[in-house]
Amino acid sequence: MFDPLEKLKEYIRCQSVSADSSFGAGMTQARDFVSGLLGGIGLDVEVIDTPLHPIILAKRGGDPSWPHVVIYGHYDVQPPDPVDLWTTPPFEPTERDGRLYGRGAADNKGPFMVHVAAVGSLLEEHPDLPLRITFLVEGEEEIGSPSLEGFLSACKDCIAGDFVLLSDTASPSEDQIVITSGLRGIITLEAELIGASGDFHSGMHGGAFLNPIQALTGLCASLHHEDGRVNIDGFYDDIVEVAPWEREELSRLGTTEEEYREFVGVRKFKTLNDVSPFEGIRFYPTLEFNGIGGGYQGEGSKTVIPSSAFVKISCRLVANQDTDRIEKLVIAALRDRCPDDVTLTVKPGQKGDPYLVVPPGRPNTPSDQSPVLARAFESTIESVTRVFGRPPLFLREGGSVPIIADLHRALGMDSIMLGLCLPEDRLHAPNESLHLGVMKKAIPVSRDILKSVAGV
Amino acid sequence: MFDPLEKLKEYIRCQSVSADSSFGAGMTQARDFVSGLLGGIGLDVEVIDTPLHPIILAKRGGDPSWPHVVIYGHYDVQPPDPVDLWTTPPFEPTERDGRLYGRGAADNKGPFMVHVAAVGSLLEEHPDLPLRITFLVEGEEEIGSPSLEGFLSACKDCIAGDFVLLSDTASPSEDQIVITSGLRGIITLEAELIGASGDFHSGMHGGAFLNPIQALTGLCASLHHEDGRVNIDGFYDDIVEVAPWEREELSRLGTTEEEYREFVGVRKFKTLNDVSPFEGIRFYPTLEFNGIGGGYQGEGSKTVIPSSAFVKISCRLVANQDTDRIEKLVIAALRDRCPDDVTLTVKPGQKGDPYLVVPPGRPNTPSDQSPVLARAFESTIESVTRVFGRPPLFLREGGSVPIIADLHRALGMDSIMLGLCLPEDRLHAPNESLHLGVMKKAIPVSRDILKSVAGV
Repeated sequence: MFDPLEKLKEYIRCQSVSADSSFGAGMTQARDFVSGLLGGIGLDVEVIDTPLHPIILAKRGGDPSWPHVVIYGHYDVQPPDPVDLWTTPPFEPTERDGRLYGRGAADNKGPFMVHVAAVGSLLEEHPDLPLRITFLVEGEEEIGSPSLEGFLSACKDCIAGDFVLLSDTASPSEDQIVITSGLRGIITLEAELIGASGDFHSGMHGGAFLNPIQALTGLCASLHHEDGRVNIDGFYDDIVEVAPWEREELSRLGTTEEEYREFVGVRKFKTLNDVSPFEGIRFYPTLEFNGIGGGYQGEGSKTVIPSSAFVKISCRLVANQDTDRIEKLVIAALRDRCPDDVTLTVKPGQKGDPYLVVPPGRPNTPSDQSPVLARAFESTIESVTRVFGRPPLFLREGGSVPIIADLHRALGMDSIMLGLCLPEDRLHAPNESLHLGVMKKAIPVSRDILKSVAGV
Repeated sequence: MFDPLEKLKEYIRCQSVSADSSFGAGMTQARDFVSGLLGGIGLDVEVIDTPLHPIILAKRGGDPSWPHVVIYGHYDVQPPDPVDLWTTPPFEPTERDGRLYGRGAADNKGPFMVHVAAVGSLLEEHPDLPLRITFLVEGEEEIGSPSLEGFLSACKDCIAGDFVLLSDTASPSEDQIVITSGLRGIITLEAELIGASGDFHSGMHGGAFLNPIQALTGLCASLHHEDGRVNIDGFYDDIVEVAPWEREELSRLGTTEEEYREFVGVRKFKTLNDVSPFEGIRFYPTLEFNGIGGGYQGEGSKTVIPSSAFVKISCRLVANQDTDRIEKLVIAALRDRCPDDVTLTVKPGQKGDPYLVVPPGRPNTPSDQSPVLARAFESTIESVTRVFGRPPLFLREGGSVPIIADLHRALGMDSIMLGLCLPEDRLHAPNESLHLGVMKKAIPVSRDILKSVAGV
């Protein structure tokens, strides 16, 4: 078997920044590296072209009666900027104090390596393992996976499996592993209001017609009630009730509200129904303004009535909200409430469904949960508890990983999201690193899951 | 006597852009030109240093019992950019179709030359004219006259006169002269709301605390009622009632609402009490948002909860509103209504009082109006009617010329604002020009005013 740490260092040296075309050579290098790595442990590797960065598909196990696990990862990383804030160069992997520093160490090269190492050692031990394994490794995760939807609809059959195993989420500390049980969905849109045909002097023209910033702030203000609830009829319909066990597990998160308040630096929290901030983020939908602009942006004053103003809106949605329906409701509210003095244009943006999976044995576990998934969850709990010394927490996350809901919708596959990143890992920031202790412990957990599914 | 047109061409060739320090030589050249011109017609010229661009003061007439007219002008001009949109170079004065093209031709070199030519020819004819004349010519009008207030308080006595005569306002057409009877005051301020200590991911943190853009739009929306009235108690107190004759004169403006609507390109008008747009601009105060910003400003979406958001506000005020009081009211409204989740910072900006002067013989003419001012107004009306073929209109303007109110407050001097610029003059824009017919006709009007005040 290969040495996972040495292989990870080699992988980090591939400068695979998907967002910047000047890193094209690094993308190719990372793709070749992953192909070689997966081929080396005995999988059949296929590199499938997409409009942008190819997808790697690697399979083993030909018997269709065997259980089928899909392991997801991505070979692209965030840009390393600002490079001068790195203690050691971003693409020169460096060990310090039990951590491996380098861009992509935690997101997602290290956690991905865990599963490759697990499969590699398992196949060495059981060359005839009765398990189908498919690695799905994309190169566009950091830029919103634009090619993935097309790939999924074209290649449905070749990746339809019993469940997805992945590690692209976080846990709160090295001894408390979290299995992410839910992700919020997302819609984004931009609204622009146009008034006069140009910017006009606020002295010579002020008092004659509606200022689009005034119209926009009124429109935006109409979207929330005083108490913070979104003021759009039907917005909260269809939401799956949060199960008491979910609140109970969340209460064991281990971070206090005061710690979190200091971390974000706010004066106080504001949540729906005055729940804790941790519940507010995970259990409820939001409508946020991500950007607003219009008129003079420079120093001091310039007394214009601007021609236009815009706002960028995103909604995070929880299970079972329908993204298309919510998008329609928000756009309709904007249209209905926009004064007819100004012209409203709405540009819809990205969309991703919310996702929720309930482990076996809970009051709200679906009665038709597949036995393969249930077995995988049970062995995950058992193995994490044994290896990390504490049972994992099943927690919803506030963020969105659209691929998870896409796989569920397209192929009916649920996901086991084993969180191997820690808050200290500094994902997307300078000095990204991976906790090597977590990596080392996670390999046998991944092995245990695969073994139990294979029934060996 | 000098040829006013040739002198004006010489004056325009001085590249006196006050906003751009690379035009320093042009500023000096313009100052020397004006000093020479005023000295040449027999005035005692003094160039007074300020922190930035010196002020020119030129006087004649030593008998303190004589009436005293202060003639105001400015020797600085707007930057010529974008230079490539000029048909002929901005600082090479060019005659075409009865107009003189060049930066500053209309604002304010041409209209200023009218009064210099009038004084020059009048003194040639009446070397012993029993009239004190003081020219006050500043070099910072286009950058907000930062040195003027200090100058006025230091040099009160040397410019205290009966009234100010100036031409730095506009008339609607070459045969309809307007005497500006009122100017709106102005206050500007910037409000910033700060929430979290940095921008945070709207998935990982959305739902826990108030977004400052949300707080800002609510705060801004609270500042107007649905019908457009400013929603701040006391905002409309103290306002001087508009006299019926003012509405009547305004109705003779000669521009239709439809023409104006097409000019600004709005779908419809929105005015206080549903008055005409022309009245809305001139007779009522406003609270406008000149700029708003916060969060992501680029293409597409970036799902952040921004740390901060700002708005730039300006109020235009009408006679008799108190700028200090209104500033306090607006700031207090912002402070009172700002949610305590976020930190509000308010930066006050510029301030300028509103101004109103009523010509003699109107129902609301002050009973203590000075006879010298009344005589000057009467001769203005008489001369404009004779020379231009139509009586002048006395109209308030929506814009602000803080110097006018400053002179009134500091020295009790009212102003006769003889509007010599036309809408076609393109002030501040490429291809600025002056209507030479208006210039030619205005010189005898200025002479008539001065003669009548001198009693010759």
